[in-house]
Amino acid sequence: MCNKERYQTLLNKINQYTTTEGKGITRIAYTNEEQTCTHAFMRMCKDENLDIRMDACGNVIARREGRKNSLPPVVMGSHLDTVYQGGKYDGVVGVTAALEVVKRLNEKGIDTEHPIEVISFACEESARFGVSTVGSKAMAGLIDKDKYRNLKDRDGISMERAFSLCALDFENIDEASRVNEEFKAFFELHIEQGPILINNHKKIGIVTGIAAPVRLIIKIMGKASHSGTTPMDMRQDALLGAAEISLALEGAAKQEQKKGTVATVGVMDIQSGAMNVVPGEVEMKVDIRSTSVESRNAVLSELNKTISFVANKRQLDIQSTVISKEEPVQLSSELNETLTDLCEDKAYSYQLMPSGAGHDAMNMAKLCPVGLIFVPSVDGLSHHPNEFTDMDDIIIGIDLLEEAVLHYAKTV
Amino acid sequence: MCNKERYQTLLNKINQYTTTEGKGITRIAYTNEEQTCTHAFMRMCKDENLDIRMDACGNVIARREGRKNSLPPVVMGSHLDTVYQGGKYDGVVGVTAALEVVKRLNEKGIDTEHPIEVISFACEESARFGVSTVGSKAMAGLIDKDKYRNLKDRDGISMERAFSLCALDFENIDEASRVNEEFKAFFELHIEQGPILINNHKKIGIVTGIAAPVRLIIKIMGKASHSGTTPMDMRQDALLGAAEISLALEGAAKQEQKKGTVATVGVMDIQSGAMNVVPGEVEMKVDIRSTSVESRNAVLSELNKTISFVANKRQLDIQSTVISKEEPVQLSSELNETLTDLCEDKAYSYQLMPSGAGHDAMNMAKLCPVGLIFVPSVDGLSHHPNEFTDMDDIIIGIDLLEEAVLHYAKTV
Repeated sequence: MCNKERYQTLLNKINQYTTTEGKGITRIAYTNEEQTCTHAFMRMCKDENLDIRMDACGNVIARREGRKNSLPPVVMGSHLDTVYQGGKYDGVVGVTAALEVVKRLNEKGIDTEHPIEVISFACEESARFGVSTVGSKAMAGLIDKDKYRNLKDRDGISMERAFSLCALDFENIDEASRVNEEFKAFFELHIEQGPILINNHKKIGIVTGIAAPVRLIIKIMGKASHSGTTPMDMRQDALLGAAEISLALEGAAKQEQKKGTVATVGVMDIQSGAMNVVPGEVEMKVDIRSTSVESRNAVLSELNKTISFVANKRQLDIQSTVISKEEPVQLSSELNETLTDLCEDKAYSYQLMPSGAGHDAMNMAKLCPVGLIFVPSVDGLSHHPNEFTDMDDIIIGIDLLEEAVLHYAKTV
Repeated sequence: MCNKERYQTLLNKINQYTTTEGKGITRIAYTNEEQTCTHAFMRMCKDENLDIRMDACGNVIARREGRKNSLPPVVMGSHLDTVYQGGKYDGVVGVTAALEVVKRLNEKGIDTEHPIEVISFACEESARFGVSTVGSKAMAGLIDKDKYRNLKDRDGISMERAFSLCALDFENIDEASRVNEEFKAFFELHIEQGPILINNHKKIGIVTGIAAPVRLIIKIMGKASHSGTTPMDMRQDALLGAAEISLALEGAAKQEQKKGTVATVGVMDIQSGAMNVVPGEVEMKVDIRSTSVESRNAVLSELNKTISFVANKRQLDIQSTVISKEEPVQLSSELNETLTDLCEDKAYSYQLMPSGAGHDAMNMAKLCPVGLIFVPSVDGLSHHPNEFTDMDDIIIGIDLLEEAVLHYAKTV
């Protein structure tokens, strides 16, 4: 069996675990389905003679001994959990690719100086508790225990309770921290989740930095009134205010487009909306991302100007609240040079690019040099049952991952 | 007890009937609450020696004999049903005012040439079945039986079943038609449900015509994508398309403002909206009203132009469907002259104005000359627990109603 078929079988095995058979993959963090999948993955790692353990946060760490075990390990990983009705590639590709690299080394009987680790990070998706990359945050010592403990899923189950149902003790989550350990390098292979590589006909994206979102909730209070009896000039229409703000936000982000900055209104809810009521109250949720804090701030400042202008013009009361503001992460230029050289050597078409989405890689960047490798997402589709990456493209990604790991783990 | 106190007591009695005590008035058509209220109202009419009957649609008709009973009656009426969590005045004022006029005539021992009728129309609000003015439509012979029979409320109960629970047989609804009868005139007193009288410091609105809505559902299909990973120039954001259309619609309606034309986007739903997803699909509900068909068409045409422009510019697939298109109704200029004269005589401040909302009066206009009288709505608030009209203003409305009825029914 060639590598491609073997890898496809591995990917298929993982994607057997879903609670929405036929309607995308649903493997929500810390659920029975995801835990069964994770334990199956641990058995697969054991079959490759890896030392396996699950840490206090539910991360799986599978270690292949190096010739010199005291040397810092070269680490690969990503996550097995998904969003509700997600796709077959997001996260899973990175975890299975890491195991596939190990399989190849075992098959070829290659020993390395440095140990190699495969990590399956717990709870990367925010789908369940509204917070993302929980496992890698724990590993990087970035968990706010008091805040996270009581976060609840849509069924009212707290994170603490979810841990307990997985035989994990939330109290011990700090034990997952590896801030006092040394790592040689961390690599994550991931689908792009966007249309850039596909549109530019490139096979590999080498990620220079990970954009971090500023997220805002904007509440617009106007006055609900009868759609038939309220003259146009006596209205305080909250929806029209929201419409103006949305378009201005788009304009501001387009001004910053060259810096890869993006801004989105993903939610716009009319309270008690009805066909015959002038909207009195609207809540918008806004997400602005850039790898450049300066560029992000430029958009934010334009947004605030528009809010004042619209509030005044339309006699609306507009409250804008920043609900999260994360810092962008620059990835290792040294690792990126290595990845670039390897792409040149192997004649893989590639481009350097920012990542607009968060990844476990951004937390691992607190611990060691990090390289994040993207493979093309057909149609840019992400978090969707039809999410797709061509198997040949994944194999190129795995080839590069293997080369990079061997480069840093040093063959003997 | 003076008339004002007596009338307040009557209004309070009716507003005892609500299923949402303390949270506005909820007296939904053909429910137990509304039926109990309607039967209580029938007893009140009986106490004033009126002949009472409920027709096949649930309309209550209470008749005061005239000196010449073969003469066509002068009719007053409105409705007792409400929206969910509505106010204390919409509809109720018109019905109770009609009974108050009868009480006054009885008290003063006034006989009239023409008989006088008080009507409480069934199911004026569209809150339950999505169709409005059912009782007056039935009286005017305008019911589409096959369409109405199976309309369902939010609990899945059909109109036919709702009739049956009120001991009414939907099959017989045609018997409520009075198209072969003659009527001298119909008057409805109603709160304005808008801010025009309050803003203009007028006590009485004499309605020249009733605007009818064109209603549309606009479905905008773009492409859902990741808010972080989709560059601004590779998006097909359905929400931004909706925002542009909404603002253009506002602009078009403002162009027609002098004709009293209004246009509203009351619903804008993002399908599967989330903070980190570029909206892929949006459904808008649009309501355009005018007493001038020409003016309404001008707005509609501008809307259609914008839809094509936005679809093309943003690569969106936009489907616009007209779901209802009613004809505006012009009210009787002769009756309006009489109402104007009476206001002048009594020195009531008044203005002629269109009605942006539909009323039972518009169906009654198929049967006879109709006069619709508005009293001021504080803050223009309508369909809301805080809906309010000053009792002194209602009394002025009742005084005018009494004068108008006496004018046409002719005192002996």
